[in-house]
Amino acid sequence: MDALLVTGEANRRYLSGFTGTAATLLISADDRRLVTDARYTEQATRQAPGFDVIENVDTLGVVAAWIGERAIARLGVESEHTSLKQHRELVDRLADEGRELPVIPLDGVVEDQRVVKDDAELATLREAVRLADDVMAAAGETVVPGMTERELSLELERLIREAGDGPSFPTIVAGGPNAAMAHHSPGARPIGAGEPVIVDLGVRLDGYCSDITRTFTAGEADGRFDEIYAIVLEAQVATEAGTCAGMTGREADGLARQVITDAGYGGYFGHGTGHGVGLEIHEAPTLSPRGTNVLEAGAVVSVEPGIYLPGWGGVRIEDLVVIGFEGVDVLTQARK
Amino acid sequence: MDALLVTGEANRRYLSGFTGTAATLLISADDRRLVTDARYTEQATRQAPGFDVIENVDTLGVVAAWIGERAIARLGVESEHTSLKQHRELVDRLADEGRELPVIPLDGVVEDQRVVKDDAELATLREAVRLADDVMAAAGETVVPGMTERELSLELERLIREAGDGPSFPTIVAGGPNAAMAHHSPGARPIGAGEPVIVDLGVRLDGYCSDITRTFTAGEADGRFDEIYAIVLEAQVATEAGTCAGMTGREADGLARQVITDAGYGGYFGHGTGHGVGLEIHEAPTLSPRGTNVLEAGAVVSVEPGIYLPGWGGVRIEDLVVIGFEGVDVLTQARK
Repeated sequence: MDALLVTGEANRRYLSGFTGTAATLLISADDRRLVTDARYTEQATRQAPGFDVIENVDTLGVVAAWIGERAIARLGVESEHTSLKQHRELVDRLADEGRELPVIPLDGVVEDQRVVKDDAELATLREAVRLADDVMAAAGETVVPGMTERELSLELERLIREAGDGPSFPTIVAGGPNAAMAHHSPGARPIGAGEPVIVDLGVRLDGYCSDITRTFTAGEADGRFDEIYAIVLEAQVATEAGTCAGMTGREADGLARQVITDAGYGGYFGHGTGHGVGLEIHEAPTLSPRGTNVLEAGAVVSVEPGIYLPGWGGVRIEDLVVIGFEGVDVLTQARK
Repeated sequence: MDALLVTGEANRRYLSGFTGTAATLLISADDRRLVTDARYTEQATRQAPGFDVIENVDTLGVVAAWIGERAIARLGVESEHTSLKQHRELVDRLADEGRELPVIPLDGVVEDQRVVKDDAELATLREAVRLADDVMAAAGETVVPGMTERELSLELERLIREAGDGPSFPTIVAGGPNAAMAHHSPGARPIGAGEPVIVDLGVRLDGYCSDITRTFTAGEADGRFDEIYAIVLEAQVATEAGTCAGMTGREADGLARQVITDAGYGGYFGHGTGHGVGLEIHEAPTLSPRGTNVLEAGAVVSVEPGIYLPGWGGVRIEDLVVIGFEGVDVLTQARK
């Protein structure tokens, strides 16, 4: 490519430092521009010193003029972050202004750069994980029978906001049968004594996400809980013990899936074992049966197997780890 | 079209009732299916009784088989919610399975249906606005000089969570020079006596958003504040008094812009006067110089002119209104 337009929010932030929600980056070998509207000009100028900030609501017009000033014959766009409508409008506008050239969709061009975290990113992620550990410790001390899912989640989100920049994603508190849904929204249901309570939360810090899940009971657990919990914990620990750089995501997923399948619950683990975490709560690589990607040293991923039994509930345990050549560095320190 | 795939989150919810973040709707004249993964099967079955819920991670495979079973010759997709990559993967997969057919991008096919709110939607929006009014009243009573932007925003978000399902968007608290940025993120800066403080917040209720902005001073305002505030208020009130169905968004925007331009501040009003609000915080129609859309009766829009002076601060005042044939019905009741 002679030039690239970047519109994906996390990609834009990664390359420029700009944290606002509306801007396009125009990047060529010798030029970096950030086009935004009047709401964001001051902020962009402060946050993205490596870019020339251009205030203009007519982004397509700026792109057309910029291309006209340069010998740009091939223009790349992000295939994941460019809609069919945006692509058509860009191609039409370039044609209208006499700049007909190929506008080529590129896959993961910035996402691939984001997989391996540098030292500054790892330091921020470590701190975001530490803050989430503290909130999870508070969750374990706060939950009592009779409290609603919503009350607990509100209290945890308050702690998350005090600790960092806010939640990485809406906090999940799922009690009893609701814990059979991996992504349940906390509701008015009171938490019953002895039933499983899945708590899944994250703290965002300087743009970076943490992600942790623990499963509690409020009051004494029953025998079924103890059985399911032990299987999930074994799967979780085995995956952390066995994962290293050079494996595929599918192989890492298989470590957890094997334990759960051997225990007879393979049909009740309906999601992948993990996913990359960074500026986005879900990013590359993928640890799942479909994860053909090779895991790279320096990637940060979740390890979160689970078992979900409709009508009863579920158990999920999740840490964040840094992948290394010899094994993983487990960032999450909260009790299991 | 013989069939339509719906992937936009708000559109999916509007048509099906499903509130999760991962699903595709397959709609033909005689069939409605919702494809999701195991995390969401229970929830989708409960929330979307009008759809057959299919649990499958291979959505493209389900689509290909579904098309094969029917006489579907033309398949529509949402141009705004289908990325170049998704479109390519769909077309390739259909070809692989011997189902070559046009996959046609459609603009705003569900968004256009969402513009005019029905009675149930209006009742929910009214209630969401009322809850936001109460939070804003608390903001006016809470702000004191020395409090940081962040402290005030945390307290307001706590009230928002208690009142409804959470914020419609991250609460904006911008004091002094920060109020010159229309979309400032609340920071550690203490609010100074007499300087403008812009507070912009919303409460989400059953999926529907409210949106309100007021500008305060903590302590006595200076003369400049009084001058700027009076102009913005005049522009805001004039727009509410003059807007009705049948006008274009550009004409409604012009009502506010004329007042501000006549007062000599036309260059300091760098955004549109308003936008539609519903399941999304920004939806059609647009009230701006680029708003060629005709305003329809039953649309809910914001009216929010502002003036922003770099180095000093800004003033913005925002209500939500329902557009009618004779004028607008102002939903927001908080003091100006």
